[in-house]
Amino acid sequence: MKPSLPAAIALAVTALPAFAQDEAIDNATLREDAQFYFEAIPTEPVAPEGNELTPARVDLGAMLFFDPRMSRSGLFSCQSCHNVGIAGVDGLEVSIGHGWQQGPRNAPTMLNAIFNIAQFWDGRAPDLAEQAKGPVQAGVEMNNTPENVVATLESMPGYVEAFAAAFPAEEAPISFDNFAVAIEAFEATLITPNSRFDQFLNGDDEAMTDQEKRGLAAFINTGCVSCHAGINFGGQDYFPFGLIERPGGSVLPEGDRGRFEVTQTADDEYVFRAAPLRNVALTAPYFHSGVVWDLSEAVAVMSSSQLGTEMEEEQIEEIVAFLGTLTGEQPQVVHPILPVRGSNTPKPQPMYVQ
Amino acid sequence: MKPSLPAAIALAVTALPAFAQDEAIDNATLREDAQFYFEAIPTEPVAPEGNELTPARVDLGAMLFFDPRMSRSGLFSCQSCHNVGIAGVDGLEVSIGHGWQQGPRNAPTMLNAIFNIAQFWDGRAPDLAEQAKGPVQAGVEMNNTPENVVATLESMPGYVEAFAAAFPAEEAPISFDNFAVAIEAFEATLITPNSRFDQFLNGDDEAMTDQEKRGLAAFINTGCVSCHAGINFGGQDYFPFGLIERPGGSVLPEGDRGRFEVTQTADDEYVFRAAPLRNVALTAPYFHSGVVWDLSEAVAVMSSSQLGTEMEEEQIEEIVAFLGTLTGEQPQVVHPILPVRGSNTPKPQPMYVQ
Repeated sequence: MKPSLPAAIALAVTALPAFAQDEAIDNATLREDAQFYFEAIPTEPVAPEGNELTPARVDLGAMLFFDPRMSRSGLFSCQSCHNVGIAGVDGLEVSIGHGWQQGPRNAPTMLNAIFNIAQFWDGRAPDLAEQAKGPVQAGVEMNNTPENVVATLESMPGYVEAFAAAFPAEEAPISFDNFAVAIEAFEATLITPNSRFDQFLNGDDEAMTDQEKRGLAAFINTGCVSCHAGINFGGQDYFPFGLIERPGGSVLPEGDRGRFEVTQTADDEYVFRAAPLRNVALTAPYFHSGVVWDLSEAVAVMSSSQLGTEMEEEQIEEIVAFLGTLTGEQPQVVHPILPVRGSNTPKPQPMYVQ
Repeated sequence: MKPSLPAAIALAVTALPAFAQDEAIDNATLREDAQFYFEAIPTEPVAPEGNELTPARVDLGAMLFFDPRMSRSGLFSCQSCHNVGIAGVDGLEVSIGHGWQQGPRNAPTMLNAIFNIAQFWDGRAPDLAEQAKGPVQAGVEMNNTPENVVATLESMPGYVEAFAAAFPAEEAPISFDNFAVAIEAFEATLITPNSRFDQFLNGDDEAMTDQEKRGLAAFINTGCVSCHAGINFGGQDYFPFGLIERPGGSVLPEGDRGRFEVTQTADDEYVFRAAPLRNVALTAPYFHSGVVWDLSEAVAVMSSSQLGTEMEEEQIEEIVAFLGTLTGEQPQVVHPILPVRGSNTPKPQPMYVQ
């Protein structure tokens, strides 16, 4: 069960102090604590509900994920903002999209996203398939339409064949829904198991250094764990940003009220899905605003805004060291060979203005 | 030896008619003719002059090729315009670069580019290393500077290590020159052997259909071969576009005088490197202007502008069918995992205006 918001706050407030620098580390106790809050990434992909990870479907999903012809301009693919070589992000404060427009929020990673409760910073998509339909249609991102995506897919014999193989039981395999389902299948394979933290969690005392273990203890005991828990160290629930103290306007811009835009509920003002922290050492810049480039600074902001404390530099360093142990094995993806366009494939329209 | 321009023209003018539809195909003679003009793609990569294809260097080149942080904006990598999934092109008439600027010419493929006499449509770079330095600095493309590229590379421990491994004999392995040399090494591995044409050339009579063989014969006998010869069916020399009849202004825009811009010689007005035709069935749109999307139309334009003939539709279809046999095995590239940025890595500047 997910902790409710008041429980999470209570946990933060009643958190115990972390282990002191010179205190001996009790691996068994630390592991037991960690196992209470966290879970290791499975070593094999898990099929999303209602989906199947057949090779044909995963391969099709990879093609779609990497295909810039899914965008109106012919320039952007999912990969543009969710780069498999940069831990699933683009390394920009906010992404650049159609016509060089800037998106409103920092691109979150799709690595391990299958384990999040919902997708996007505000959780407005319940699953990865629903998520995949967003950017392709967003005017500032890929600026396409479901009709044009389907027309593009139907025009290429290679896609006709690949959809038939991926959805063998269906009479009309090519649809915008199946486009999204195939991308979800591929993304479900993009997991990063065997991080050093997971190795420690699974019983290897040597997988983490003492500094990292002190960081883990501090992460639990100072209350970070109130929001960043579960398999993804976040992504499992929604919390207000600026719980104790509102951070500066560039970090938490006033105009972006987070989940309020989804629920229209006053309680959801400036509420966001807790950022998943797997591979966080690789995913700068940080926060939905993307303005913080340094992980230590991000931890300090969290400390003051969410926990109401000014952490000592040494503890911040320990937590940052610990966060580095959440870097798992990055997915090895063979870049797919994309279907050749057909005579009636819609042409790219980079200069299209809506 | 490359044929000189006058000889090529003479060959075009004195070309013999192609085999008639009902004429029996003499495989041995056709193969012998083809072997006179063409060469198969080697099945293994060949090291460029002065370069070495060590695994460390090729792997580094792949990282650089796929790394969008080599651009000022953080958005573009070599891969953006030379997509390994789309036969090395971007499928746009002309590429989109920094600030959504349009480039002046259609992006040529880097597949098999190692076999071209020189790089770019006008041959202004003698080799792939020199070529690699162009787009990264071009204001309308990646808009970066050598200094910023080097600073970016030096700021990431992963690159420091990778350059040391790729250039083990050098005291200062990271340099803009070595950046280009590593990309050249990677690109030298991007070849497409074992096309059906190459199989035929190497002795397999069954590798091509009769229609395709008639197309090959026509390609030789009508004079296409005057310009499109050698291992890449082009890329081996320079020829005037509009030799016999100037094509329409959108196909051959007046403002782009081709190799004249390089040599400032009147003879080089509207002279371009003959387009390499390997994998041409996958690389639409065509010509340096990128305005022709249909391969049949491209052949028809060539026929009238370069050979001064109006080919019959049947013959155009045969030639197009033959060109399809030039599609080789596409490179299987594992998307590299890119080095994590360092604390002093220059930030992307998507909104930079020169």
